[in-house]
Amino acid sequence: MMTHESIDLTTMGQAAQDAAGVLAQLSSVKKNAVLQAMADALIAQTDMITAANQADLAHAQDLPKKFVDRLKLTPARITDMANGLRQVAGLPDPTDQIDKGWTTAAGLNIVQQRVPLGVVAIIYEARPNVTVDAAGLTFKSGNAVILRGGKEAIRSNTALANILQDVLKAQDLPVAAVQLITDTSHASSQALMRLNGYVDVLIPRGSARLIQAVVQNATVPVIETGAGNCHIYVDKAADLQMAENIVVNAKVQRPSVCNAAEKLLIHQDVAKEYLPVLAKALRAHGVELRGDERTRAIVPDMVAATATDWDTEYNDLIMAVKVVDSLDDAIHHINTHNTKHSEAIITNDYAASQRFLQRIDAACVYVNASTRFTDGFEFGFGAEIGISTQKLHARGPMGLAQLTTTKYEIRGDGQVRA
Amino acid sequence: MMTHESIDLTTMGQAAQDAAGVLAQLSSVKKNAVLQAMADALIAQTDMITAANQADLAHAQDLPKKFVDRLKLTPARITDMANGLRQVAGLPDPTDQIDKGWTTAAGLNIVQQRVPLGVVAIIYEARPNVTVDAAGLTFKSGNAVILRGGKEAIRSNTALANILQDVLKAQDLPVAAVQLITDTSHASSQALMRLNGYVDVLIPRGSARLIQAVVQNATVPVIETGAGNCHIYVDKAADLQMAENIVVNAKVQRPSVCNAAEKLLIHQDVAKEYLPVLAKALRAHGVELRGDERTRAIVPDMVAATATDWDTEYNDLIMAVKVVDSLDDAIHHINTHNTKHSEAIITNDYAASQRFLQRIDAACVYVNASTRFTDGFEFGFGAEIGISTQKLHARGPMGLAQLTTTKYEIRGDGQVRA
Repeated sequence: MMTHESIDLTTMGQAAQDAAGVLAQLSSVKKNAVLQAMADALIAQTDMITAANQADLAHAQDLPKKFVDRLKLTPARITDMANGLRQVAGLPDPTDQIDKGWTTAAGLNIVQQRVPLGVVAIIYEARPNVTVDAAGLTFKSGNAVILRGGKEAIRSNTALANILQDVLKAQDLPVAAVQLITDTSHASSQALMRLNGYVDVLIPRGSARLIQAVVQNATVPVIETGAGNCHIYVDKAADLQMAENIVVNAKVQRPSVCNAAEKLLIHQDVAKEYLPVLAKALRAHGVELRGDERTRAIVPDMVAATATDWDTEYNDLIMAVKVVDSLDDAIHHINTHNTKHSEAIITNDYAASQRFLQRIDAACVYVNASTRFTDGFEFGFGAEIGISTQKLHARGPMGLAQLTTTKYEIRGDGQVRA
Repeated sequence: MMTHESIDLTTMGQAAQDAAGVLAQLSSVKKNAVLQAMADALIAQTDMITAANQADLAHAQDLPKKFVDRLKLTPARITDMANGLRQVAGLPDPTDQIDKGWTTAAGLNIVQQRVPLGVVAIIYEARPNVTVDAAGLTFKSGNAVILRGGKEAIRSNTALANILQDVLKAQDLPVAAVQLITDTSHASSQALMRLNGYVDVLIPRGSARLIQAVVQNATVPVIETGAGNCHIYVDKAADLQMAENIVVNAKVQRPSVCNAAEKLLIHQDVAKEYLPVLAKALRAHGVELRGDERTRAIVPDMVAATATDWDTEYNDLIMAVKVVDSLDDAIHHINTHNTKHSEAIITNDYAASQRFLQRIDAACVYVNASTRFTDGFEFGFGAEIGISTQKLHARGPMGLAQLTTTKYEIRGDGQVRA
């Protein structure tokens, strides 16, 4: 790993573009066979991968336990990655699809053919499974990928990328279909963010800090993913038992992920009756509660929520709680503080449910269900590359289709414009 | 007009976001009535608009004739703008649509509802008609718009924006639905490009230079539009008469626009027979031809094309001509030099047409038709906000639907994730 002041990735970018031209012409049958061969190769090379991973782990002893856990690859996790590739092989190929077609007034026959984006770049942290997941999804959708993972996982990532490239080579495909940037300096990610003309889209995967760094510095098109300051609003017409089930599930079932709930809003008319029940249930699962004044007047021993709490994604067993005057007060609070990810109302009032669905500005708006369902598998899309929280191109869980674009194919018989 | 070192547009951005919340809830009937009222107001205020425009023109005497022509507003052009608004009123409202819906394994009912993007920003040059066109399209699709036009048109743009805002006021709608940045300093466009959290998408409209400045400097999501280095490839199996009609139409029917052809490629097997005919026809329309060596050996008195010619969009009566060895040579040249806009093959060979359609990387790929058809009206979309040459979100002519995104509305009955 070298560190340069500035890094030239254009050779890598051109190789990726050339590879993309080949991938775009591959049949689904061929792509699926390659994905199966990649899965087989990962399993066959389990020892080599774990050895590389051990070397990464040896350098990560001083890092937080959570971080080390994400970095670790066990044989079981390698099997999971291989199975992930097999699942992607089993999904329909989005580029086999024509979205629509029509004949124009001039007699031109237009079809909107779904095609790969071309070159997808991924910047991510020290989670080596992303290397394989991202390579599988981009390959199946006909894209070349340029991967830039966290420096702490460089040995694991290099081992994984080499295995995938060996499969490509054995299948007579360009190895530049899957490229890993092995220089993990700051300069290499900066160069990737500005590789205009070569990178068709850059998707950052990881912490809010990483994503914001990409949004602020990239000149290539970016899809913003992952930040989730999700709310559950318990309406005055909510069923208490349902509210308890959903609030607890959304908060504690997997608190570290982006679709976990971070905030609880409750209508003032039911706060006195419901809050003690909800607080008790959450605390029974070890959740630290932080409340506004009205909440703390009802539930004792609660830390006071500060202004920053309303904008914070904890990714932890912490939940801030606020009593609201009305449905519209809840909607206003959510639209002011949310990250446009997933929001839920618990209510049996039809008009309230409709108003919440219409007025909340988010990728996914729920009535009477946990925000934890915002997920490619739960939606039925299969594996996902991330959850888009922006409005351009893709919104919500991004599956294979979101890794494609379209091309108008226009057939005429000599038409000229009058 | 003041010039600041740095400009704070957050107040404007927040007003736009608040207005967007109101617009998103408006019915199509109401939006169409407002668009008709805007058209009426433009006609009624023709004198005021032309007076403001005269003041702009008085300051533009030293600028190129083409520039002044685009800046000029006559009563006929004001009528055209008003009619444009009435046409937009007549188009279907994209936000009335549900794209798809399904029930998940967990029993959740999901619908993908089309919704406005929110706040659209437009940076453009001294073409006051863009003020009205962009306001009409963004309003109909339920978006608030922030307009930043060229400084030479500031008096015309201010007059137009005031008229539209008066209509909004009279209809009890927030005037921030249509805002014009009246500070035309460099700093104001820089600030707009970095108004993250307020601007959902920024669409530059104008020269390649303007568009590249936006791509390089914006941190908000951008849709790149308009650059068109379009090619016509005359295959060895082309009908000569059809080739002549299409090449002439694509080059001369309106040379200043992005879908006009800039390059002519011709298969070596027919170059000797076809090139003299094509060159004569183009020259009869005043086209200056620039050729590669093989072309100049066939057609006398032709300027030599330099390396930069192959990447240049002339927007003028100039065309560069190149003899290619094969279909694949043509495809490779186009994919190397094009701007991903519109490309055409003229051929009667079925396999050649299929190969060209599949392998050319562009928004619109034509067989036996002029590239001039890449246009919202010609496609049947109605008015367009631009032609997207990027792959994210929208590709090709962008109508009302491309000014929207989607939101998943998810109805459950108490589902929690296992």
